[in-house]
Amino acid sequence: MLNLLLAVRQRSESLVAPLEPEDLCLQGMADASPPKWHLAHTTWFFDTFLLQPYLKGYEGCDPRWNYQFNSYYEAAGARHPRPSRGVLTRPTIREIFAWRQRVDAALTQLLTSPDADQEDIQQLAELGLHHEQQHQELLLMDLLDGFSRQPLEPAYKTGADHHLGPLEPTQARWISCDGGLYEIGHAGAGFHFDNEGPSHRIWLEAFALMDHLVCNDDFRCFIADGGYQRPELWMSEGWSVQQQLGWQAPRYWRGDGPADQWQEEFTLGGRRRLNPQAPVRHLSWFEADAYARWCGARLPSEAEWEVALQQHQPLIHDAHGKLWQWTASPYRPYPGFLPAPGAVGEYNGKFMSSQFVLRGSSWLTPEGHGRDTYRNFFAPANRWMAAGLRLAR
Amino acid sequence: MLNLLLAVRQRSESLVAPLEPEDLCLQGMADASPPKWHLAHTTWFFDTFLLQPYLKGYEGCDPRWNYQFNSYYEAAGARHPRPSRGVLTRPTIREIFAWRQRVDAALTQLLTSPDADQEDIQQLAELGLHHEQQHQELLLMDLLDGFSRQPLEPAYKTGADHHLGPLEPTQARWISCDGGLYEIGHAGAGFHFDNEGPSHRIWLEAFALMDHLVCNDDFRCFIADGGYQRPELWMSEGWSVQQQLGWQAPRYWRGDGPADQWQEEFTLGGRRRLNPQAPVRHLSWFEADAYARWCGARLPSEAEWEVALQQHQPLIHDAHGKLWQWTASPYRPYPGFLPAPGAVGEYNGKFMSSQFVLRGSSWLTPEGHGRDTYRNFFAPANRWMAAGLRLAR
Amino acid sequence: MLNLLLAVRQRSESLVAPLEPEDLCLQGMADASPPKWHLAHTTWFFDTFLLQPYLKGYEGCDPRWNYQFNSYYEAAGARHPRPSRGVLTRPTIREIFAWRQRVDAALTQLLTSPDADQEDIQQLAELGLHHEQQHQELLLMDLLDGFSRQPLEPAYKTGADHHLGPLEPTQARWISCDGGLYEIGHAGAGFHFDNEGPSHRIWLEAFALMDHLVCNDDFRCFIADGGYQRPELWMSEGWSVQQQLGWQAPRYWRGDGPADQWQEEFTLGGRRRLNPQAPVRHLSWFEADAYARWCGARLPSEAEWEVALQQHQPLIHDAHGKLWQWTASPYRPYPGFLPAPGAVGEYNGKFMSSQFVLRGSSWLTPEGHGRDTYRNFFAPANRWMAAGLRLAR
Amino acid sequence: MLNLLLAVRQRSESLVAPLEPEDLCLQGMADASPPKWHLAHTTWFFDTFLLQPYLKGYEGCDPRWNYQFNSYYEAAGARHPRPSRGVLTRPTIREIFAWRQRVDAALTQLLTSPDADQEDIQQLAELGLHHEQQHQELLLMDLLDGFSRQPLEPAYKTGADHHLGPLEPTQARWISCDGGLYEIGHAGAGFHFDNEGPSHRIWLEAFALMDHLVCNDDFRCFIADGGYQRPELWMSEGWSVQQQLGWQAPRYWRGDGPADQWQEEFTLGGRRRLNPQAPVRHLSWFEADAYARWCGARLPSEAEWEVALQQHQPLIHDAHGKLWQWTASPYRPYPGFLPAPGAVGEYNGKFMSSQFVLRGSSWLTPEGHGRDTYRNFFAPANRWMAAGLRLAR
Ligand SMILES: [Fe+3]
Ligand SMILES: [Fe+3]
Ligand SMILES: [Fe+3]
Ligand SMILES: [Fe+3]
Repeated sequence: MLNLLLAVRQRSESLVAPLEPEDLCLQGMADASPPKWHLAHTTWFFDTFLLQPYLKGYEGCDPRWNYQFNSYYEAAGARHPRPSRGVLTRPTIREIFAWRQRVDAALTQLLTSPDADQEDIQQLAELGLHHEQQHQELLLMDLLDGFSRQPLEPAYKTGADHHLGPLEPTQARWISCDGGLYEIGHAGAGFHFDNEGPSHRIWLEAFALMDHLVCNDDFRCFIADGGYQRPELWMSEGWSVQQQLGWQAPRYWRGDGPADQWQEEFTLGGRRRLNPQAPVRHLSWFEADAYARWCGARLPSEAEWEVALQQHQPLIHDAHGKLWQWTASPYRPYPGFLPAPGAVGEYNGKFMSSQFVLRGSSWLTPEGHGRDTYRNFFAPANRWMAAGLRLAR
Repeated sequence: MLNLLLAVRQRSESLVAPLEPEDLCLQGMADASPPKWHLAHTTWFFDTFLLQPYLKGYEGCDPRWNYQFNSYYEAAGARHPRPSRGVLTRPTIREIFAWRQRVDAALTQLLTSPDADQEDIQQLAELGLHHEQQHQELLLMDLLDGFSRQPLEPAYKTGADHHLGPLEPTQARWISCDGGLYEIGHAGAGFHFDNEGPSHRIWLEAFALMDHLVCNDDFRCFIADGGYQRPELWMSEGWSVQQQLGWQAPRYWRGDGPADQWQEEFTLGGRRRLNPQAPVRHLSWFEADAYARWCGARLPSEAEWEVALQQHQPLIHDAHGKLWQWTASPYRPYPGFLPAPGAVGEYNGKFMSSQFVLRGSSWLTPEGHGRDTYRNFFAPANRWMAAGLRLAR
Repeated sequence: MLNLLLAVRQRSESLVAPLEPEDLCLQGMADASPPKWHLAHTTWFFDTFLLQPYLKGYEGCDPRWNYQFNSYYEAAGARHPRPSRGVLTRPTIREIFAWRQRVDAALTQLLTSPDADQEDIQQLAELGLHHEQQHQELLLMDLLDGFSRQPLEPAYKTGADHHLGPLEPTQARWISCDGGLYEIGHAGAGFHFDNEGPSHRIWLEAFALMDHLVCNDDFRCFIADGGYQRPELWMSEGWSVQQQLGWQAPRYWRGDGPADQWQEEFTLGGRRRLNPQAPVRHLSWFEADAYARWCGARLPSEAEWEVALQQHQPLIHDAHGKLWQWTASPYRPYPGFLPAPGAVGEYNGKFMSSQFVLRGSSWLTPEGHGRDTYRNFFAPANRWMAAGLRLAR
Repeated sequence: MLNLLLAVRQRSESLVAPLEPEDLCLQGMADASPPKWHLAHTTWFFDTFLLQPYLKGYEGCDPRWNYQFNSYYEAAGARHPRPSRGVLTRPTIREIFAWRQRVDAALTQLLTSPDADQEDIQQLAELGLHHEQQHQELLLMDLLDGFSRQPLEPAYKTGADHHLGPLEPTQARWISCDGGLYEIGHAGAGFHFDNEGPSHRIWLEAFALMDHLVCNDDFRCFIADGGYQRPELWMSEGWSVQQQLGWQAPRYWRGDGPADQWQEEFTLGGRRRLNPQAPVRHLSWFEADAYARWCGARLPSEAEWEVALQQHQPLIHDAHGKLWQWTASPYRPYPGFLPAPGAVGEYNGKFMSSQFVLRGSSWLTPEGHGRDTYRNFFAPANRWMAAGLRLAR
């Protein structure tokens, strides 16, 4: 556990190695956070929720750092406004790294002490580890957003996300599932976020899930067929968002307009040619939903997605490791869900309105972080995450 | 059918009888519409969707009226921006009434003609009738909003909404329902909106529903216990909305602050003393959800609400005719839902994101308009509707 | 004085005679006020500043009316927010008329009493009279704005503002004035607003003023020459305003784009053909300034305008009664200016930043209200007033 | 000239020496720019306006750099939106420094070539030099803004701006000037910005100017006397700005409210104790104007300021080198002003609306950059500049 934890902590630092110092405070929009902030916030999480309460003699960080690096925990006090995280040029990266070392040392001390086996400590350490993994993905998707706003279109790393898709066309197939009473949600041992439980029964009618993700070429057909100009394909809210923001293609597609000109996309490896067979990515729930309607299909519910995997795992391609997959399910608590008491209970439970669930995991998700029961969630207009879609009917 | 239709049409006009001429264009906020606009829009609905297509020789309204009185039907052309409906002082009320008469005469002609039995015509006439009933409720709730913004606090009608609640305390009871596989949604004959179907099976675990609505006195305790100051009771989105808008009590409560000072509320009958036993009303989903959490309870899902009525109808007080009841269910399509083709398909189907379902009906709902399968929906921050809540566990 | 006052009061009421009842609360935008509000506010002015302090036994209006109809006098208490004047459907027009009668009777009583000769009373009565005249012009220009936002383009009165200009081309001439030390501002007896004084000396270099206002045809040439597409002609602030708001022509010109299509304009008499020789109107200071730069000329300073009239009155056409004329002068106090103490001192003095002076008067200005020393003022982006321009060099 | 130019260029680079790398992209608000951007933009100015047109064989920068570092020159093409300069993490500081070296070498080549004496070249080189000096001051004031938004309150340099004021109280005196016809504006040889001319005559009545700047203790009395709560002291526009933004003291004063608690201020040297005798700084025109009214005095016009210096230079303390001084004069062209043709003409001329003139210079102004005829200008609500005030009567 300690070794894994320290390895995850180490990986966070290696993620910023390819960056220029000026990139460390880059915040492209209110929803995103600068790389340095992610490094500090994940450290604050251990400092505040694990070390201060459980490690005797541990001295917590400066209260102003608490103010700066608390993300959204009301119970942990007031916070610096999220849209202005980019102005926090201080503490410097050196100070953050020093803090990280101090926290790593304290974690080592705590987790090798006689207290280490206490359930609270184990659970919080594990939560902190998975929290840090989540922020590793956030760091990269926030960076892609920030880089995409620059005329120079910097690359994070040459070759980053090169191999998301095959180069040859593949034949997509419907995978059928019988109707019936199923059980979904996390059961048994092993780490999971609170929102993945309780495990519970759900009735499903027969349905089918597509074995492949929708690819760029598919989506190009939607655009060519006037997909962005036909209100009947869209939720009313989505139509007005796209009209207002002028969407004409997925977030990072590049080109100058008509469908056949969308030949490139911006990636962490810089601008490159669109791979027609690669799964389409960085689109909103509204676009995913409109695309599915245009196909005469629909998005799967999260239960359908999970049950299909229970039944036919090997047939469902790219459930993990390519793109998060939008579902038709609003993000709401499972029956019987109760968040933990205290600040940690704010982790997931208070976001259960006006968002949709995504399932699976993405090429940005750290190794070992995904799960079939994992419930990721974003607002239906968000596009900067590594999101794609898979059809159902 | 024709007689019923004409009676409903007539009722719309009688609703504006108590108003002053200046009130006819009152639009208190972007979400609300002026009384005159409702009279015109409901008429436009018949003009556009029934008479123009089906009554030979019928001459539709001026295209500029179409522009003014189309609400949200993309397939019926461009529209005047909703937040500016209040500036539409013309056509005058006399012109609107004359149009209504012309449309009523044409409806009479069509519905007494040999074509009257065509299914399309019957269905559209019935839809228009229910549409007009919906707008009768909207007209009154929009008016309450508009009047509430005036320092003079005008009354729509003395005695309006006097008898919403008992004057004596009542003992609320939990009504238990077994878990199992149930069928919900509208089945069989009889008018219903498209979003009430298809009827389908759903699995529910055992649950209990409160037989009474939450009353003003209950809610006063929530306020007195710091309900509006405790973020742990709220969804994150709701907390930030109430902080920003300064909510401290339901929308129309009056007073100057601390809980025991909320002694009055503004109603269509003007300002009057709060009845402690009457159901609390005009609160958002966020407030209903926070209240339920404070109680250690929760909101029912819409399926639970409907099944409880199937099983124990006589025990569930005030399911209809008092207040719409917020549910825990985001407004989404039932499995297999397909909107009608064409403009009429925009009626309900395109609003299925970022809203929550309310069940039942209210004292503003026209006689005969409610149904146990009825799915009303509003955004979670909306408060101007006749909404209350009922607990589940 | 009393007779004149009552005649002015009467005229306000006759101005609303052509309106429909629904028009009485029409507020097209935050800067404009509804007709009924103008009738009430001018009455409130007498009620608050003259009758309550000086007429024994006079009972002032309801404090809530004070709240509703106080425009901007901080010393007279809190106010209803200006952008929401349109929601004030109550008091009704009947109540306002009754109030007006009560105030007229009280004014008659006060001004025929032995106190009538007191200087304070005389001055406040006179100020109230001129105030009401100002609002008569505001009422009409606000109405034009409100009507212009309606698809039906209602006419206030057939034939309104028909004869603003000649039908035959006229030859414009430069009127030269010598440089020298001049005196400007109001001197001597006679009513004037506080901001017209003190009279004071000013040095002017030789200049010339155009004897005619710029006409529609002139302005059409500016448009045809790309005037709205050439940033070098504009103040930076004006350029960004027009880009943001999409200005392509004066506020009420109608047509669909390229210069030769601007053939109509919207007026209080409804939409009608543009008279090429009539003075161009309803343009912002930014447009006037850009036009002048395009001509190789400039706007006159307010001192130049006033001095030219002192010297060459008969040669300067249309100084009054057609359009207010934008000047190059920011609205600032004359040397030695001191506003009156108390609420009345807020009349003009507190608006002396970020506005420009207009000189002359317009066809909407009531008879007898204009003066050569009159300093009207609006923000440089405002376009809904009766404003035109005259060149200088 | 070349030596001076290279020294100024060198100073820009030394200004960023005390910064951390993360500070280089710090943009605290839309009006401010990051340090690195200033270094690049001043270089772009030479690249675009001097080297590309005049140095044969010179290869201009990447068009995307042109897009990024053009500030507001419409004639030089489209620009990156100003409020988002902070996201431009690339080019890196190393690339900017390399560009600066290349440009410095090219400047050396050009200014030592036979062409060096051409008037155009001389003028543009001199303009570029003064432009770079202006940006040195902007860089520091923008940095102060950015640092002030951070909980950690970083110091730019210990001891920065320590000695702005005396520690002992001084006796302020009125310096009287006769009325008469004066000449103001820049005349004769020597560099000046275009807006300082043409030199022209102006009539002034007798006036008096205070020999000292208003100091912190003076301003504390204004606050203690309710200055920020008394609308009668404020322009209407200023009152509504300060109410909205919650101003209670000058921009960088620190403390928690009542007047006697404003004991500290934030500076480029970090937070430190307010010096009661030091001139009050970082206030808006609205605050300066309200303060003057509270004193029964007023702000001087820019002509009064300049004439007082012509007449009584040695008596006027701190005309330069402490704080820019707000004047009562809106920023408008002098009679006969004509901006240069082309992009360079956009330097000053297009900003002549909705701003006020400041005179003098500040402790941030580079040595040799100030002039008695210098016309600095900012919007009346701006507070982040090094602005103070001097009274007139
Ligand atoms: Fe986090
Ligand atoms: Fe409708
Ligand atoms: Fe007024
Ligand atoms: Fe510049």
